[in-house]
Amino acid sequence: MALRTNYKISKIPEMTIRRLSIYTRCLQQLEEDGVKTISSQELAERFNLNSAQVRKDLAYFGEFGVRGIGYYVSGLKAELLKILGLDREWQVALVGFGNLGSALFHYKGFGRQGFRISAIFDDDPAKTDRVLDGIPILSLRDLSREAKAKNLQIGIVAVPAEAAQVVVDRLVASGVKAILNFAPVRLKVAKDVRLKNVDLSIELESLSFAISQGSR
Amino acid sequence: MALRTNYKISKIPEMTIRRLSIYTRCLQQLEEDGVKTISSQELAERFNLNSAQVRKDLAYFGEFGVRGIGYYVSGLKAELLKILGLDREWQVALVGFGNLGSALFHYKGFGRQGFRISAIFDDDPAKTDRVLDGIPILSLRDLSREAKAKNLQIGIVAVPAEAAQVVVDRLVASGVKAILNFAPVRLKVAKDVRLKNVDLSIELESLSFAISQGSR
Repeated sequence: MALRTNYKISKIPEMTIRRLSIYTRCLQQLEEDGVKTISSQELAERFNLNSAQVRKDLAYFGEFGVRGIGYYVSGLKAELLKILGLDREWQVALVGFGNLGSALFHYKGFGRQGFRISAIFDDDPAKTDRVLDGIPILSLRDLSREAKAKNLQIGIVAVPAEAAQVVVDRLVASGVKAILNFAPVRLKVAKDVRLKNVDLSIELESLSFAISQGSR
Repeated sequence: MALRTNYKISKIPEMTIRRLSIYTRCLQQLEEDGVKTISSQELAERFNLNSAQVRKDLAYFGEFGVRGIGYYVSGLKAELLKILGLDREWQVALVGFGNLGSALFHYKGFGRQGFRISAIFDDDPAKTDRVLDGIPILSLRDLSREAKAKNLQIGIVAVPAEAAQVVVDRLVASGVKAILNFAPVRLKVAKDVRLKNVDLSIELESLSFAISQGSR
């Protein structure tokens, strides 16, 4: 097993990264089921993946397969977690504490992967200056100070569309370099900032595709 | 421009469908910018896509490019919307009206793509038997009747993990064949039911990948 470290991040397709996340979940499940080793073919069959794609995706990062054995489940999982930056904890700023913000704060999946929402921001004074489950809800004015104090590196934007650009600008000015945006609006950021937009309708579209094809 | 209709849906990678959704958004933007035609190379460059991938994805469904011209922006967008089942309106059942359910109900992106939440269900009597923005909030007991009356074809599950399997079983028993699940739990459905799990941490993982690589 040999991990490459000389790859260029800009050369790696975004979909490859998304699939790495999916592979870690498959490997987690295999681990829970007591599976020690697996070939790319078996992995693909079991989880309805494409085995050539699995090999190609992994090849960006190293040689993980062992001839005649396949992949060591736990070892490969650990390597993928490391590649994805999930072998550590990330301090996350959540901006916007309406229904969506509140739902995201309580979303169990984030903590499980090491994403810790450690400060919440809102511009409604009725919501701020209190502590929820140990986490402070603060005014946006406090963002810069808090970002520094808590080393906030990732921001989640859960504000209405019309407020999103201002919030993103403030996050970036506070040193946050990675932003997950839920507001349905196109935002502008500097080149060195990673912005990812979540478009929940895309998820529904794969369903409408499937059921409308079924009815042709 | 020739649309194929003999493709097998099971042969089409899920990522291709996801990319079709992204292409429709790019084409929408081009349309707004007044662009009439575009080559796959220009499309790829402008939206940071892979032009070979664009051509391969589209080839599953037909020949959309015109030699020497490229793609007709509006025409291609219309074809893709049709393929994705977005040339019509879908009646959607939302189950679970806590923070997440409420956020999804107000999410503007769904309606824009033709997904209309036309009934909400919850098992908390304090929330049910009222009407919100013209949409009834009903007890889960009413699901089967309402699903029939309103032709509900897609279900969105926004209940806690421990309640999700029961809800999914009820949706399926009521004739809903496509389900978008937000509960962080693995669910079982019959083979003819389309189940899509939304894992919001995957979105964060592409960010942690990027920023942890940047700091190597």
